[in-house]
Amino acid sequence: MFQHPNLTKLLPSIPMLEWGRRYDRETLISDLVAALIVTVMLIPQSLAYALLAGLHPEVGLYASVAPLVLYAIFGTSRVLAVGPVAVVSLMTAAAIGEHAAIGTPAYWAFAISLAFMSGVILLLMGLLRLGFLAYFLSHPVISGFISASGLLIAASQIKTLMGVNAQGHNFIDLVVSLVQQIPDVHLLTLAVGVGATGFLFWVRKGLKPLLVRWEFQSRTADVLAKTGPVAAIVLTTFLTWFFQWQTQGLKIVGAVPQGLPPLTLPIWDLALWKALAVPALLISVVGFVESVSVGQTLAAKRRQRIAPNQELVALGASNVSAALTGGFPVTGGFARSVVNFDAGAKTPAAGIYTAVGITLASLFLTPALYYLPQATLSATIVVAVLSLVDFSIFKKMWRYSKADFVAVLATMLVTLTLGVELGLVTGVGVSLALYLYRTSRPHIAEVGLVPGTEHFRNITRHEVGTQPTVLGLRVDESLYFANSRVLEDHVNDCVASHPQLAHVVLQCSAINSIDASALESLEAIDSRLRDSGILLHLSEVKGPVMDRLQHTHFLRDLSGKVYLTHFQAIQDLS
Amino acid sequence: MFQHPNLTKLLPSIPMLEWGRRYDRETLISDLVAALIVTVMLIPQSLAYALLAGLHPEVGLYASVAPLVLYAIFGTSRVLAVGPVAVVSLMTAAAIGEHAAIGTPAYWAFAISLAFMSGVILLLMGLLRLGFLAYFLSHPVISGFISASGLLIAASQIKTLMGVNAQGHNFIDLVVSLVQQIPDVHLLTLAVGVGATGFLFWVRKGLKPLLVRWEFQSRTADVLAKTGPVAAIVLTTFLTWFFQWQTQGLKIVGAVPQGLPPLTLPIWDLALWKALAVPALLISVVGFVESVSVGQTLAAKRRQRIAPNQELVALGASNVSAALTGGFPVTGGFARSVVNFDAGAKTPAAGIYTAVGITLASLFLTPALYYLPQATLSATIVVAVLSLVDFSIFKKMWRYSKADFVAVLATMLVTLTLGVELGLVTGVGVSLALYLYRTSRPHIAEVGLVPGTEHFRNITRHEVGTQPTVLGLRVDESLYFANSRVLEDHVNDCVASHPQLAHVVLQCSAINSIDASALESLEAIDSRLRDSGILLHLSEVKGPVMDRLQHTHFLRDLSGKVYLTHFQAIQDLS
Repeated sequence: MFQHPNLTKLLPSIPMLEWGRRYDRETLISDLVAALIVTVMLIPQSLAYALLAGLHPEVGLYASVAPLVLYAIFGTSRVLAVGPVAVVSLMTAAAIGEHAAIGTPAYWAFAISLAFMSGVILLLMGLLRLGFLAYFLSHPVISGFISASGLLIAASQIKTLMGVNAQGHNFIDLVVSLVQQIPDVHLLTLAVGVGATGFLFWVRKGLKPLLVRWEFQSRTADVLAKTGPVAAIVLTTFLTWFFQWQTQGLKIVGAVPQGLPPLTLPIWDLALWKALAVPALLISVVGFVESVSVGQTLAAKRRQRIAPNQELVALGASNVSAALTGGFPVTGGFARSVVNFDAGAKTPAAGIYTAVGITLASLFLTPALYYLPQATLSATIVVAVLSLVDFSIFKKMWRYSKADFVAVLATMLVTLTLGVELGLVTGVGVSLALYLYRTSRPHIAEVGLVPGTEHFRNITRHEVGTQPTVLGLRVDESLYFANSRVLEDHVNDCVASHPQLAHVVLQCSAINSIDASALESLEAIDSRLRDSGILLHLSEVKGPVMDRLQHTHFLRDLSGKVYLTHFQAIQDLS
Repeated sequence: MFQHPNLTKLLPSIPMLEWGRRYDRETLISDLVAALIVTVMLIPQSLAYALLAGLHPEVGLYASVAPLVLYAIFGTSRVLAVGPVAVVSLMTAAAIGEHAAIGTPAYWAFAISLAFMSGVILLLMGLLRLGFLAYFLSHPVISGFISASGLLIAASQIKTLMGVNAQGHNFIDLVVSLVQQIPDVHLLTLAVGVGATGFLFWVRKGLKPLLVRWEFQSRTADVLAKTGPVAAIVLTTFLTWFFQWQTQGLKIVGAVPQGLPPLTLPIWDLALWKALAVPALLISVVGFVESVSVGQTLAAKRRQRIAPNQELVALGASNVSAALTGGFPVTGGFARSVVNFDAGAKTPAAGIYTAVGITLASLFLTPALYYLPQATLSATIVVAVLSLVDFSIFKKMWRYSKADFVAVLATMLVTLTLGVELGLVTGVGVSLALYLYRTSRPHIAEVGLVPGTEHFRNITRHEVGTQPTVLGLRVDESLYFANSRVLEDHVNDCVASHPQLAHVVLQCSAINSIDASALESLEAIDSRLRDSGILLHLSEVKGPVMDRLQHTHFLRDLSGKVYLTHFQAIQDLS
């Protein structure tokens, strides 16, 4: 068999073939144990996030089968656990909410189409090696977005905890509506909801120390504490059945269809695809960024590596498979991946075993969910997402960088008031604009020789030596169209304030590129200096920059010389 | 009188108070001579560009009175000649064409409103010191845009030269339509048009050498050659009157109202303002960039300076005054400013005298324009704009920088096919995207010591010394969200390929800033290296970067040290 080498490079690789070959009994047992624990944790999460996305609870189970298998085949992380996650579920609800009514078959069909589109986008990005695009979402923007999403999700769940019908298109409307409906609170629902929430918070904070005192290992205690939501579900379901609370107005999950995930297809409708294109792109990027950061954090702990472009392919395949089996957009989740890691998963096979576990649950467990109170699911969501909310980022960014602070603030405010999609787009826009603004006003330092060295530093910061006839200028930015005029102005000003000047030396150690506009500015600077009887020299021009300048008029016509080091230039011109 | 110092800073300055104080008889004569020559040149241009903008010819005269006076008061260029220019007239036609029919009173009212909006935008940009925004239009984008505009204008005028009614929404449609209508050509019109065009080309290329041979001074010959359009107008007007060519179907200018510029007001209609906002902004920016580059080029020749933010104020005031006196958007024109300069204008007072000249023309000269053939005006436009078209930029950019080449090409193609506004926006978008793409993939070099110096350079380009235990890396880009992951990956790869490694030193001479995302990446790199038993050091960190890092966890927790110079780092770690 002959395969063209470039073609094989374009095809996705299959990491499974790598680890599958060395699979042994010990690994099997580790993976099985981890899978069991993740399954127990994933069942309530799947149900809850499906409800959060506006879908029937069983759709959450469907989304937790095929995607796990596909990720296990194509993914490069050994421990990433794929499935429905909070932020992506919120984004799904926001995207589809405009086009169909919650709970309708059309709504489900749109969710399936959204998963399909998101999968195709991820696959294309992976095959075209566009993973770098995701890095344009900066850390501050992601932090602000995730925190704001956490607040939005919590606010949206509180109505279920209170048993009221609050509604609102943004965070403020929602909170106002919740406050207005306090008199209508359903007390039994509130009791179950608050009880479950309190229990879950206690499990998070109080159970682990208790387990450790009972001489469990710290890691085992961690894993056991993560099964808290299942305990809450079992307990409240039992109480509801025993006291028949649904007859007193407590909303329950009700009949959930039993059976394997159905085979489904996306809607082939160009108008719908156009309407969902931007949300699908944003869901893809957010899902990818979330997934890759989880994967990289965990991989680093075991000295493994993540291949971002291959991750795109894996997540793409997962989402396409979600669309073909009745699911909705999925990605790698933080909490469940950590559990998987801590529980000792060794290979992605653990994901396949988890998929088997969820399949068994959707075949046999769904009747047991009949009496599960919706308030319990909301409680698990609230407790999960509040850990996403992190206001300390504001203080940190304010101290370190005002530009990053503005980006966080803008992302958060717009996400809370105008929605998740605009929030993300604003965040990226603001952070790019601030970056461009900064690079358009470069720092330009006059430099002098640090005594006893060959090193030059800013004359206003260090005790350095200078000469009246030679001016050394260091431009702290690559020269491009947005800032080259600033350099022109700066040199003009410097010449006016140094009457004895005969030489200007531009130290180019921080100039990483010079575009065509900047080249014209340099030509203008050179010709103006020449008119004033001053020579322009360059020093420490980098290789890639020099390669380009080599064949230009500028270098041929330059009044001065190009020096390898600034030290040589100053020695020569003294 | 007490004035708050910060308030005076915000108010626009009035350069006229500066030069007006030292005005003497000699300067007066120089300015009067220059004004006379510019007036003679400006009359046909004003009429022609008004027609190009889709307005009655007298509107061009109105736009050449008040704006010149306002620029003379507020402008910082001594010689800039303001008035209607080709590209801005084309953009005006494109902006209004969608909203009103050419030649109607509504069309004129919209042009007045556009001038007002553009003036307000320019004033605001000047008062808020936003002049730097204009620099985001790179040289290649401006070149591509101006060339494409020149082609569009020429194509639009050829129908008048041919005496046909060709129409098209883009360059290709227009050319196709022109070719289809060749059989309908009006031969008399064609004869006048081609005759005038040929005459004007000859004046440009052939007249000056002739005049020089007749022992005129070279500069005088230049100025005389610029009055060619007036000769063409006088000649063709006389012939048309003598032979009564208008009775044979030659289109003439016809009755042009006599009198002072009227007092007018913009339309106060929010819907219209919204529709015209983007065109007004683009017209403002293009007008400003064109004007400032002309002003700077000419100022440099006499060692004078242009203050860009003050120029915004001056052009803003000019455009507002154009709107109040029946005009349309204006800016500083290249050709007429050069004539003004060559003719010896010393102060902006020359502009005021020109305004007086144009006022006299609109009071007394308009009846003489009755028999002026429209084809003659089109000929002056065609000859003027073809000098704007410059295809050599393609070759130049292709050689110097592929990114700049792509920006020129995109700007030009989109301008020709989808219109001037989309063309400009595309140009800015493409050049920013390419800049961001480049900065997102930084050049990272492994560096070694240049023997006999304290200087370090790329090991693949220079003969330098290295050590197996110390790795020196120079990152040729500021670290920010879009590229910090690339550094993480690169360091990971380097560590894998250097088994004996004990120290990594990042030479930060080209790192001009580190944003919050990049700081997190550096923390990640440090902690991963530490896990592998490798220390991370920094060298040559710049002042502004160090100021920020000073109070961060990163610097406190850094496994290695921060060295003033890379040389010290390598000596210490050997």
